[in-house]
Amino acid sequence: MIYLDNAASTRVHDAVAAAMVPYLQGEYGNPSSLHRQGRAAKKAVEAARRKVASLINAEPSEIIITSGGTESNNTVVGAVAGQFPSGGIIASEIEHDAVLEPCKRLEEGGYDVRYLSVDGLGMADPSTLSEMLTGNTRLVSVMLANNEVGTIQPVKELAGACRKNGTLFHTDAVQAVGKVPVDVKDLGVDMLSISSHKLYGPKGVGALYVRRGAKITPAMLGGGQEGGMRSGTENVAGIVGFGAACEIARGSLETNATRISNLRDELVRMVLSEIPQAEVNGNPNSSLPNTAHFTFLGVEGEDLIIKLDEHGIAASTGSACSLNTQRPSHVLQAMGFSKEQIAGSLRLTLGIYNTMDELVKVVGALKEVIAELRRVSPYKAKYSF
Amino acid sequence: MIYLDNAASTRVHDAVAAAMVPYLQGEYGNPSSLHRQGRAAKKAVEAARRKVASLINAEPSEIIITSGGTESNNTVVGAVAGQFPSGGIIASEIEHDAVLEPCKRLEEGGYDVRYLSVDGLGMADPSTLSEMLTGNTRLVSVMLANNEVGTIQPVKELAGACRKNGTLFHTDAVQAVGKVPVDVKDLGVDMLSISSHKLYGPKGVGALYVRRGAKITPAMLGGGQEGGMRSGTENVAGIVGFGAACEIARGSLETNATRISNLRDELVRMVLSEIPQAEVNGNPNSSLPNTAHFTFLGVEGEDLIIKLDEHGIAASTGSACSLNTQRPSHVLQAMGFSKEQIAGSLRLTLGIYNTMDELVKVVGALKEVIAELRRVSPYKAKYSF
Repeated sequence: MIYLDNAASTRVHDAVAAAMVPYLQGEYGNPSSLHRQGRAAKKAVEAARRKVASLINAEPSEIIITSGGTESNNTVVGAVAGQFPSGGIIASEIEHDAVLEPCKRLEEGGYDVRYLSVDGLGMADPSTLSEMLTGNTRLVSVMLANNEVGTIQPVKELAGACRKNGTLFHTDAVQAVGKVPVDVKDLGVDMLSISSHKLYGPKGVGALYVRRGAKITPAMLGGGQEGGMRSGTENVAGIVGFGAACEIARGSLETNATRISNLRDELVRMVLSEIPQAEVNGNPNSSLPNTAHFTFLGVEGEDLIIKLDEHGIAASTGSACSLNTQRPSHVLQAMGFSKEQIAGSLRLTLGIYNTMDELVKVVGALKEVIAELRRVSPYKAKYSF
Repeated sequence: MIYLDNAASTRVHDAVAAAMVPYLQGEYGNPSSLHRQGRAAKKAVEAARRKVASLINAEPSEIIITSGGTESNNTVVGAVAGQFPSGGIIASEIEHDAVLEPCKRLEEGGYDVRYLSVDGLGMADPSTLSEMLTGNTRLVSVMLANNEVGTIQPVKELAGACRKNGTLFHTDAVQAVGKVPVDVKDLGVDMLSISSHKLYGPKGVGALYVRRGAKITPAMLGGGQEGGMRSGTENVAGIVGFGAACEIARGSLETNATRISNLRDELVRMVLSEIPQAEVNGNPNSSLPNTAHFTFLGVEGEDLIIKLDEHGIAASTGSACSLNTQRPSHVLQAMGFSKEQIAGSLRLTLGIYNTMDELVKVVGALKEVIAELRRVSPYKAKYSF
């Protein structure tokens, strides 16, 4: 099995799994309990929080642990609505649904929600954003790296424009953290979302960075955990795993980024040279190291996934999450892709376990599968395959 | 170490931990992915859902997986507010903060929130509830079993009164599920909250049962997971563990309940016979099998916990969660306890791993510690210890 769907989820590190198991069985205390077991659990959560903070150059007190990126993103949008009964929000057109859908709900409630456009490479423009900002704009949310095409946004410039305007800036950094250096102080963002399972940690845990001084209202109320910002008994084993994954990511970030981007570049080179009428998408000068996004005209992405799966290759047409809604990619639409281009798209996202040998096999399989699908394509004549 | 804080959290079953590990490393697919790894993860989530449903006699389609009891409770209150811009909610006075705090927020937003009283044993009265219901009451929330004193409420009768009135009925069954038989069809509830880590499953996962036909609005939006009712990549390993814990609980419920309630009864008998001026609280005729709640006048509960901890015994003054807020127990206040009674309270909650030998040691330690604390108590003269 060759796994090239690391943007959807990653294999938990051996060291991460090993760090988690004791907190399921030996150290199962509730961090809010006063006794030794409770204190041990609390200590483990705080140690993990420091590791998460360290990966993004935040203070531990600026980290709210959540159940994942979706909760972090929902919390941001809900918090703004909780603070301001009315006003405006600007989100980029290519945000994840975990930002867009809460925004839509606010829009239905009378909020003024507008969308920042992107160009054909998936890039948002800070000067366009500046022109859109008004005195009423409460929040701007632009993701750090896109989950489909991997484009990295000029977040520092976007956040700067917002700061000048007195507007809160949030970035969904779920795909970026652990893959590229992320420094919240340098970026100047007010809020930033992280997901553990995208960086070789367990699913079901993530974080929301909230800059000290930025006020938000909590999404979940109850026992007052996370300094009152996120109630609910802490997922201790998950949090410990998340912390361990962040620590490992911090120590190996540059080595992995270099190795993986070299593999990715070679993959792209092989695909473009060996498969006719193939295109690579996204911004070659500002991209995640692990993402390769292609268009193969005349082919249905879903057929491609199924055929590759038969060859033992795990790939994706785009966001795993979008499968639940069965809509064509809003990201590619925003980048100006035609319906045919969207249909023929394939996302291959590499991880630390991939090898050059695997990629050679993948290109061989892709070549075969695409030729096979194009032989029966209704677009056969149009593109003269 | 003798762990008597099973209401705060439980040790994950060996079999549960063993079931989880493969979903961290071997089967790490995202359930929304189309390929084999994605399908395997999806299949595991659905199998777990069936096990959760089976434990409470629900249909799998009626189970929404959440990050835990707090999220389930928040979702219920938020969903009602999402559906009805105004109206009334009735919650019992002894609900967990994960119900009370979201209700308070609604109250601040103009909702009419009223509180159902309980008697000295912690019991709510269905006829009192019937008198409180109006045509405007959108939701009633009364917990199945109380987390501090263990009192089991007449939920079937309370739910019946609500059904007659066309009012949604929710029960927080976090402490009850897995310890006593819970049948949602027999109880006639519309919604019910469950937590995995209270029944020897992992922390960070739980469920909300929503009766087929009862409409709620989702708390978290995004990728459309859980049939659109709870977005966010599924915590596959956690969910698998939760399912395994539910399956084990279902198979051993009666045996465990009998064994544990016998241990608990013996613990209560020993404490009352060996320690002077001790009282046992809650309803002896309607109680969780594992909960023993005592008052030792002239003693500070927190001092007791710390002293017991030195003896290697993990105990609690009440809700673990309430430690974050440092307020005196609202449950005991509602039951009419005096400040001194509240201060002198101790909760011992048994689990499947406790033995009679342990309890004998606990009573010995308690006797010693209480005598020691009472010697220096400011109430020494008042109670003539």
